[in-house]
Amino acid sequence: MKLLRFGEKGREKAGAIHTDGSIRDISSFVSDIQAPELNAALLERLKGIDLASMPVVKAPVRIAEPVGGIRKFIAIGLNFYDHAKEVGAPIPEEPVIFMKASSCIQGPNDPVVIPRGASKVDWEAELGIVIGTRARYVPLDEALNYVAGYCIVNDVSERSYQMERGGTWDKGKGCDTFGPIGPWLVTADEIDDPQSLDVSLLVNGEAMQSGNTRTMIFDVKKIVSYVSEFMTLEPGDVITTGTPPGVGLGMTPPRFLQPGDVMTVSISGLGEQRQQVVAFER
Amino acid sequence: MKLLRFGEKGREKAGAIHTDGSIRDISSFVSDIQAPELNAALLERLKGIDLASMPVVKAPVRIAEPVGGIRKFIAIGLNFYDHAKEVGAPIPEEPVIFMKASSCIQGPNDPVVIPRGASKVDWEAELGIVIGTRARYVPLDEALNYVAGYCIVNDVSERSYQMERGGTWDKGKGCDTFGPIGPWLVTADEIDDPQSLDVSLLVNGEAMQSGNTRTMIFDVKKIVSYVSEFMTLEPGDVITTGTPPGVGLGMTPPRFLQPGDVMTVSISGLGEQRQQVVAFER
Repeated sequence: MKLLRFGEKGREKAGAIHTDGSIRDISSFVSDIQAPELNAALLERLKGIDLASMPVVKAPVRIAEPVGGIRKFIAIGLNFYDHAKEVGAPIPEEPVIFMKASSCIQGPNDPVVIPRGASKVDWEAELGIVIGTRARYVPLDEALNYVAGYCIVNDVSERSYQMERGGTWDKGKGCDTFGPIGPWLVTADEIDDPQSLDVSLLVNGEAMQSGNTRTMIFDVKKIVSYVSEFMTLEPGDVITTGTPPGVGLGMTPPRFLQPGDVMTVSISGLGEQRQQVVAFER
Repeated sequence: MKLLRFGEKGREKAGAIHTDGSIRDISSFVSDIQAPELNAALLERLKGIDLASMPVVKAPVRIAEPVGGIRKFIAIGLNFYDHAKEVGAPIPEEPVIFMKASSCIQGPNDPVVIPRGASKVDWEAELGIVIGTRARYVPLDEALNYVAGYCIVNDVSERSYQMERGGTWDKGKGCDTFGPIGPWLVTADEIDDPQSLDVSLLVNGEAMQSGNTRTMIFDVKKIVSYVSEFMTLEPGDVITTGTPPGVGLGMTPPRFLQPGDVMTVSISGLGEQRQQVVAFER
């Protein structure tokens, strides 16, 4: 099932994609998809909906992040062999964890804002894991049972904040608008193998990133199991799993986003995001 | 005003400390103090309550973190001259930012749990800032207007997760129970000068940390202003401001927490925390 939220910011409703490609309003079943309520029972109930009988949502409509009230937005760094190589970083021995501020989360097509004075805003197309069941010390072979589904994440990053201003990467990862998520939460049963998904990102129609989740260093089940050693994962928490090669930082010379640029991000089976890049204005 | 939340986890009610020292139940005015609703208007309304006429809450009662539903738990690292020195770190040129997982937040006297197999759990008594007004690119001289008040934070840390397992500090900072906050949110009008507060931490009654916020490298207004350059601060967000000297890591040999240890944390005007350290049990 492809779940989503649609409508203006703060007034989103629950929806789902029908097989005919239309968005159906399922808010008569569940008014909104909020992190604390996301669980196996809710997903089971939603699967029972006859989408053909649900009202069609007329385009154009804003698509929001597919889960509201996300509490933790956890990220894995340097998790593709080919990306670690392009930025000259050693292959990590254990997953690298950092955090994106929850206030950076937005819909998949909302504009990405360049912070005031920033000049090194970069893209990172990534597979996002959405947690469906409270998870703590989860064994590797059970880890996928805790996954509600998958989504696209653009782990937008300001490289000078991330690496030249002291402290941890978090400084350059959590700026407002740096966390487009969606368009859909695709339930885990629709993804046969999360380690064989094509990931791509274009800027102004030009291919920048083109990879596949098979070159991940730590796979989805390892990531869920590993992170659950360090904190309890809660329903609706999102873990973004690292980016394949082709980021602006890895180019010679490096290439960063400018106002007017348009990013298009897609992952097999998970849909597409499209963000216009704009300058900060008060 | 000294605001607090009391009651079992998930069923907390709003309270305040009367001048006679008793906890008064103010839930007839506001059922709970939740991050999204924390703002100047709410605080103004609460100040109008005649606490003497409010019901006394009978001891013993559990005290929770003073704000529920905290969205961001931001931390400043190496922010005391004397602490940076004890751990052999250079004085940062800009504030060091990292994030604590929101799932680590708990009441001030709830037990601190040593994660499975961990052996380097350490204490960090800190002044916490609670944001009261949405803040983005806040000028230095206006920064304190965005502060609802102050609280004690114990920035509990697992040093091997933080520094020996790869990646950012976040891995050792956000474990469950690593964020005791409270007992009170003391409104900003009650704290004449946030840069002259004594901070202390005892383990089993023995003084470990003893410092004063005057030796902070970056003061409260600088921290609020600075962090607001990198993300929007929202009502109820907590920024913990770094620890004075006396952490276990800085001792020769280093000393870490063991099951059975008891931490007592206090800051002038902000009350006291008391945590028993326990081993992880499923």
